[in-house]
Amino acid sequence: MLNFSYHNPVKIVFGQGTIAQLTKLVPADATIMLTYGGGSIFKNGVYDQTKKALGDRKVIEFGGIEANPTYETLMKGVEIAREAGVDFLLAVGGGSVLDGTKFMAAAIPFTGENAWDLVIGTAKYTEATAIGAVLTLPATGSEMNYYAVISRTETQEKRGMGGPLLYPKFSILDPETTYSLPKSQIANGIADTFTHVMEQYMTYAIDAKVQDRMAEGILQTLIEIAPEVMGSEINYTARANFMWAATMALNGLLSVGVPTDWATHQIGHELTALHGIDHARTLAVVLPHLMAYKKADKLSKLVQYGQRVWGLTGTADEIADQAITKTAAFYESLEIPSKASAYPITADTILEVKNRFVERGMNFGERGDITPEAVEAILMASLS
Amino acid sequence: MLNFSYHNPVKIVFGQGTIAQLTKLVPADATIMLTYGGGSIFKNGVYDQTKKALGDRKVIEFGGIEANPTYETLMKGVEIAREAGVDFLLAVGGGSVLDGTKFMAAAIPFTGENAWDLVIGTAKYTEATAIGAVLTLPATGSEMNYYAVISRTETQEKRGMGGPLLYPKFSILDPETTYSLPKSQIANGIADTFTHVMEQYMTYAIDAKVQDRMAEGILQTLIEIAPEVMGSEINYTARANFMWAATMALNGLLSVGVPTDWATHQIGHELTALHGIDHARTLAVVLPHLMAYKKADKLSKLVQYGQRVWGLTGTADEIADQAITKTAAFYESLEIPSKASAYPITADTILEVKNRFVERGMNFGERGDITPEAVEAILMASLS
Repeated sequence: MLNFSYHNPVKIVFGQGTIAQLTKLVPADATIMLTYGGGSIFKNGVYDQTKKALGDRKVIEFGGIEANPTYETLMKGVEIAREAGVDFLLAVGGGSVLDGTKFMAAAIPFTGENAWDLVIGTAKYTEATAIGAVLTLPATGSEMNYYAVISRTETQEKRGMGGPLLYPKFSILDPETTYSLPKSQIANGIADTFTHVMEQYMTYAIDAKVQDRMAEGILQTLIEIAPEVMGSEINYTARANFMWAATMALNGLLSVGVPTDWATHQIGHELTALHGIDHARTLAVVLPHLMAYKKADKLSKLVQYGQRVWGLTGTADEIADQAITKTAAFYESLEIPSKASAYPITADTILEVKNRFVERGMNFGERGDITPEAVEAILMASLS
Repeated sequence: MLNFSYHNPVKIVFGQGTIAQLTKLVPADATIMLTYGGGSIFKNGVYDQTKKALGDRKVIEFGGIEANPTYETLMKGVEIAREAGVDFLLAVGGGSVLDGTKFMAAAIPFTGENAWDLVIGTAKYTEATAIGAVLTLPATGSEMNYYAVISRTETQEKRGMGGPLLYPKFSILDPETTYSLPKSQIANGIADTFTHVMEQYMTYAIDAKVQDRMAEGILQTLIEIAPEVMGSEINYTARANFMWAATMALNGLLSVGVPTDWATHQIGHELTALHGIDHARTLAVVLPHLMAYKKADKLSKLVQYGQRVWGLTGTADEIADQAITKTAAFYESLEIPSKASAYPITADTILEVKNRFVERGMNFGERGDITPEAVEAILMASLS
């Protein structure tokens, strides 16, 4: 096992009716900016529950944070927050609202010229506005980590940022808030969660037994609950298991002491940046083909995954191949195609992605050997 | 799944050579009390590494904290710490040293007459001295939770206390510090960890899938590493997996949203209080017999445990019986007898334990139906 540090101070408040606890979780004298997305919170009762719990606190609202939240949109919120003296950001929504709000938390007190520098890391932030969250879409894990992924329309970029100052103080997870989600968003949430686990697990083997068992346990849980969560009958327990699985998949515990890959996300971000494809769908386009490309290097882990998660038997080679097939089939079972050819991705797209990585001088994967050329090969295999 | 809150702000620093990080983890201007146990830290190099990392900070030492740390001993440390103006407690040792130090943290600023009241809950503490820890014995999980178990010699009591003020600020876990442990302490650590998981897992079923899979994963890990950790060859990876399993077993994640039992610990504490039997050994005396006593109520979980952790097949009844047998055999494989008859426990002991619970008006278990009479029946079965 590799040496590691782990520190995650986010308070999780989980369960039915827990939005009411905002009353005690948000400081009574806070000047709050309530951030949200497309407005679904007005239809599903979450907005009403939130406002009721906040009582007569001073609340400014900033909505319209889009899926793949953009720098351009968020900077409008930053300006409003600065003018109003906002000292508490309450993100109410899914991962995009949370991620966007994290960027705003860093940008509001930032005195530099260009807040995009905070995203790409060419400027540092030494303080951040306090954040709380009410999660309505299990998927990104943003509710219990300090990461954010921010897009920039002007340059068609999508980049990750993060740091301990961006941990939410608390996150409220009420599984009932997921009841009104469309099936496609639930599918995306399951696929995103599944891929988060795989990024931290499907590497070369390092014999970190508890981390491996946890990863496998979350994957098994997702496989088990997917038909129920995707089905037409609402089931609280299935939703609760989905919600907690998504949070546990990316709160840092799976990656302690182990190598992590994350190439699938890096490549996927470019497909979203160029074509606006849903984040989770870009992951399905990449992961199975990356697993096949790196089969020799990841073999012992592929076998462990195939045996423990999918109950496969056979030779190592057979198990690895079947495990990759099962992974693609799992995405397909969520009605998410796992081939680039099912999306508006072309050979030109792939060349553009490759060239972007060449320009940035970026290699990926747990060994840093997913070169731009390897990215091209993986995507071409997905397109074929 | 039940509603829950989860908040664990302990910073974990894990791996080889990490004691050196005390340099940046402990405030430079702190007046430190370094607490320890029987003095093994002087023989295995941990004391030297600790002192070197602390540099020229002001350090007072308080050693001699015994296994099952006593109120009487700890109050001597409390007096010394108060007089010296100690504002940082650095616990260097196993769970007993950590637990004892947590009590001291609450007792040092306490202005009431009788600090034992803090243990039994008849007085409250509103502040506590800051704690850091260097763990040398994986077992109790005290390094990443806010619980402590304190004994009182005068009255032969052993009682639990805890609260958010008693979280260590950080805990350093270097698996190499376990290299000098005697085999019996390693065995106790594995047994203690195994039982911690079972207390949070072996209840009536509630379909909390991620928590169940995590619990099963830690149990499987312990079963897998036990022969290697108990063997004569030192293996870093096995020790690291053991150490992290012990921490993960009791940092609160297994018990979120589920019922928990803890009757085995409650009963075991009395056996330690009365006969000085090692904590882990008292658990082995109780758990298999409690599982048998509650077989009907815990049946579906017993079957899940038998199938997933031990790979058992058969009817539900057969699997449950075999799962109980396997559990007892696991303790025995650690050279820890699982029958009361192997210890200085008599029918008189059992009557005394029962009467203590009658006096305190205490029932246990996830349904609160382990009455004093049930305790008697469980222990008598263990004695037979």
